[in-house]
Formats: sequence, structure tokens, C-alpha cells
Amino acid sequence: MKKLNVCSHREVITNPDHPTINTIWALHQRNEREKTGLFYSEGLRFVAQALTGGHVPEVAVYSPELIKVCGRRLVRDLMESGTPCLSVTADVLRSIALNADPQGIGIVARQRWQALEEVDPHARLCWIVLDTVQSPGNLGTIIRTGEAVGAAGLIVLDDLIDVYHPASVRATMGAVFAREFRFVRASQRNFLRWKNKHRCALVGTSPTASVMYRDVRFGSPLLIWMGGERKGLSEKQQSVCDTMVRLPMTGRSDSLNLAVATGIMLYEVHRQRSPSDSPSGVDLS
Amino acid sequence: MKKLNVCSHREVITNPDHPTINTIWALHQRNEREKTGLFYSEGLRFVAQALTGGHVPEVAVYSPELIKVCGRRLVRDLMESGTPCLSVTADVLRSIALNADPQGIGIVARQRWQALEEVDPHARLCWIVLDTVQSPGNLGTIIRTGEAVGAAGLIVLDDLIDVYHPASVRATMGAVFAREFRFVRASQRNFLRWKNKHRCALVGTSPTASVMYRDVRFGSPLLIWMGGERKGLSEKQQSVCDTMVRLPMTGRSDSLNLAVATGIMLYEVHRQRSPSDSPSGVDLS
Repeated sequence: MKKLNVCSHREVITNPDHPTINTIWALHQRNEREKTGLFYSEGLRFVAQALTGGHVPEVAVYSPELIKVCGRRLVRDLMESGTPCLSVTADVLRSIALNADPQGIGIVARQRWQALEEVDPHARLCWIVLDTVQSPGNLGTIIRTGEAVGAAGLIVLDDLIDVYHPASVRATMGAVFAREFRFVRASQRNFLRWKNKHRCALVGTSPTASVMYRDVRFGSPLLIWMGGERKGLSEKQQSVCDTMVRLPMTGRSDSLNLAVATGIMLYEVHRQRSPSDSPSGVDLS
Repeated sequence: MKKLNVCSHREVITNPDHPTINTIWALHQRNEREKTGLFYSEGLRFVAQALTGGHVPEVAVYSPELIKVCGRRLVRDLMESGTPCLSVTADVLRSIALNADPQGIGIVARQRWQALEEVDPHARLCWIVLDTVQSPGNLGTIIRTGEAVGAAGLIVLDDLIDVYHPASVRATMGAVFAREFRFVRASQRNFLRWKNKHRCALVGTSPTASVMYRDVRFGSPLLIWMGGERKGLSEKQQSVCDTMVRLPMTGRSDSLNLAVATGIMLYEVHRQRSPSDSPSGVDLS
């Protein structure tokens, strides 16, 4: 992975065809993200989360015209972290903006991937496993929920899953930068070999499973495998799961939104495995 | 609310400026939806769910070029239900399409609203209450989850919440047509009067609440009030809740996606109030 060609932070870039700006623009495409191992993220919240998560971005771009006071502090923090910071015009920043309101700042950061063999199957609450996700918004929301509830990370079994898609990154609300939440990519075969080696319990979900999700006593190491939005887990995939569970649905709907279903599963695991910390219960019945 | 001006179903409409097509196009705008009490929905799944839910659409449009076999069956069912069905060219259908793939069929249906005084506070699992939602996708996903888990319906406290926004309707995956799930619009003042009269328990959520959501024993009648994506419930709103609860977050994230948080709350209420129906539990610990 080559280093970005970055000019000094004293210049102000007015040309939207500047090489660094072109490089950032290219990162909106997946093949460029794959090739470079980088991604672009913008907005105050995201840049702040990257710094909190210990990232040193490859480069930051900011528009003095657009940035607010707290953004200026971020630029100082970025400079102190050793990040090259490029000052650009509002038009140049907007030319690479992913959102209607880029908030005057964006960063190019390095993707974090770990090998399956390096990660601890017992780590934290459990691991989330995905093999297909249609919507990058759902993918990012799953990462956001997983990070919040204390999951160890996400294992993706298909190269089609694009964790660093701009819409996915945006939906994580910055959780993509949390170091404690790991990202792993593995073939299905290697994943199953690893699961068996470490005797992980692999739990899949399907609306037709006979066991309700809350009737399973979840232990560790635990892997929660959620199928894609359209077809869920295939029969073959279900057959390699240790248990298939179902979320109850009493209405006409035959399925839940994937990110919602994942959230319900993860919080049930958390409910069972983490003691309550409320000062006292409340009876509303 | 005036009836749509509809021509006979034997004509094939080739003109995208046909009055009915213009009327449908106008329904993409909220003020037209409010004025007429109608909305437009497209796709096989949605039309089928409308019929299953007992709706008789004001009008249906379909393109013989685009429609598949199961769609032709839907057109027959629509005609049998008494719905005027307009045959249009593929170009005309695409001119009013909300999605890239309109699947050759769409309907104009009447919005369903009930007065607060007419609904049963004890009905089904609980009521969902919303006063602000930024994302129509989140709104529709909440309706989808609420319908699936057996909630009585949605009470909206602000005219800004646009239940029948195309992106909301789409995210419901058809749950918006389920008759058992009610939609109520009320002022905050009338809502609180109604809540007090019926002695409903009003539960709000906030990341700073001291009580964890699962330490509350939920009874009936129960109202679950979820704040908006950006600011949650205001202090004033929190002060009128009987209990404020918190979803545990152990990671860096300071909030969950609104639709995910709502799903976790609703499934916890369901867990407490509905007996398990699994044949037997599974121990993975």
C-alpha cells in the first residue's frame, strides 16, 4: 500500500483536480478502497472518533470557510497526532463530499483488518458473523450496535461485504473507528475450521427455527450468524450452525429488518451474560 | 377528500401528463398527501399486503410490459376487490416510480388514522409513541418491528412525523397496511390527558437514565416513548414519563440507532409478557 502523495499543510488547495483530491475522490469507489486499504470519512463526529480510537489518518482535508470552532480544535489535534492537514476551499471540499453537509472536515484513514487466526474467540460478548448484506446502512448499523453492546467484532465471510462503504461508515456513527471492535475477513471454509478448532457455539437465525432466541442459554465462545436481508441463511449454512433460533413475530410481517434483528439478538446475549447494574427495579405491572 | 378522477381500465395510458398520473406524481409531496389523505405505494409485496390487509385502493396502475405472472394475478385480485385498474406503458409507470424497480404495479391507497379517544390503551402488547423522527427509513422500520412483535400501533405527537412518506412506507415492507396496527395523531397535551385518564404507564428512554430497561416489570396499558435521533427526549418530556430507562452501552458509542433501540425495547416487553413457545430450551453455556 503506497503512501498518499501529500503537499505541505501551508498551501491552500483551490484546484479540485489536485492529485490528493483526486485520490480521495477515487476512494468513493470500492476497487480503489480495496487496492489501497484506505477509506474516506467526513464530519466532526467521525474525525473525533478516529482520533479517540487512536487512528493517525493518512491525511486530513479541511475548509477554513466551512469549519466551526470545534473543528479548528480537531485540526490542531490532527496536526499534533502527526496527520498531514490540507487546507482546501469550500468548493474543493464539497467536490469530494459524501453528504450534503460535510462540516468542513474529512480524513483518509487506514482500514483495520485482522486475520482470523489472530483473534480471540472468547473475546468480549460474542462475534457477529455476516455473509451477505444488501444495504450498507444495515451493515453500518450492525457495527454501531455491536460496538455499543460490547461485541468482539465482525467476521465477514464474503468479499462482497463492503464494511468501508461510505454509507456503511456513516451508519456506524463512528463505531468503525473503535479499536476494541475488530474486523475479520475469512472464507467460509476457514471460518468453520476455526470455529470447530475453538469449539465456538455458532447460532444462526431463521423465522422457521423451532427454538425461540430467548430460550437458548448463551455461553462463550459465541458466534451469532445473521443471514442477508433477502434470503437469510441457506439450508447448507443452517446445517453447520449448532443451533438455529427464531425471533417471535405475531403480526403479518414475515421478517424483521436485519439491523433490528441483530440488535435484538445481541441484547439478549448481553441480558443473559451481564449482570444488571440498575440501583433497583421498577414494577409497572 | 375528493375521489380520484379515474378513466376506464380498458384504456392504455401512454401520456405521462394524464390527469391520474399527475395526481399520483403529486402524492410524492407531503402537502398533497395531507390534503387528499392518500398515498402511493408500489411493488408486488406492497400491493399484496394492501389486499391482505383489507384495503380497497383508490386506483391501481400497472404496466403489462413490466409485470410478471404473479403481478397479473394481483391485478385480477384488485379488479375483483373493486379497484379501478389502469393499464399504462412502462415509461409512464417509470415516470411515477419511487424505486429503480417498480415491478410493474402501484396503488393509491387511503391513509388510516384513528382518533386517540377511539383506541384501546390496553390493546395488544403496548403502544409506540414518537414525537420526532429524522429518518423516514427509521420510522418505517419502527412500524415494521412494531407490527411484527404485536404492538397495538403508533401514536405520533408531532405533525412533522410523516408516516406515509415513500421511504417510510417502503421501510415498513408492507406492515403499514396491516389493519391490526393502528396510527394515531394527537397533540402532546391531549396525549398526556388520555394517558392519565387511562392510567397508562409511560416509559421513556435515555442513555443517562439510572434504571436499565430490563429491570422494569412491564404491565398494561403501556406506552413506550422513543425520542428523536439527534436529541432524544427533552427534559420536560422525560419529566412526564413514569419511568425513564436506559439501554446498556459498554463500547464507545453513546447511542444506538433509533429503530434498533425501539426493537430492543419492544422485544423486551414481549419477552416479559408472552410465554415462551419453544418446545425446549438449548444450553450453549
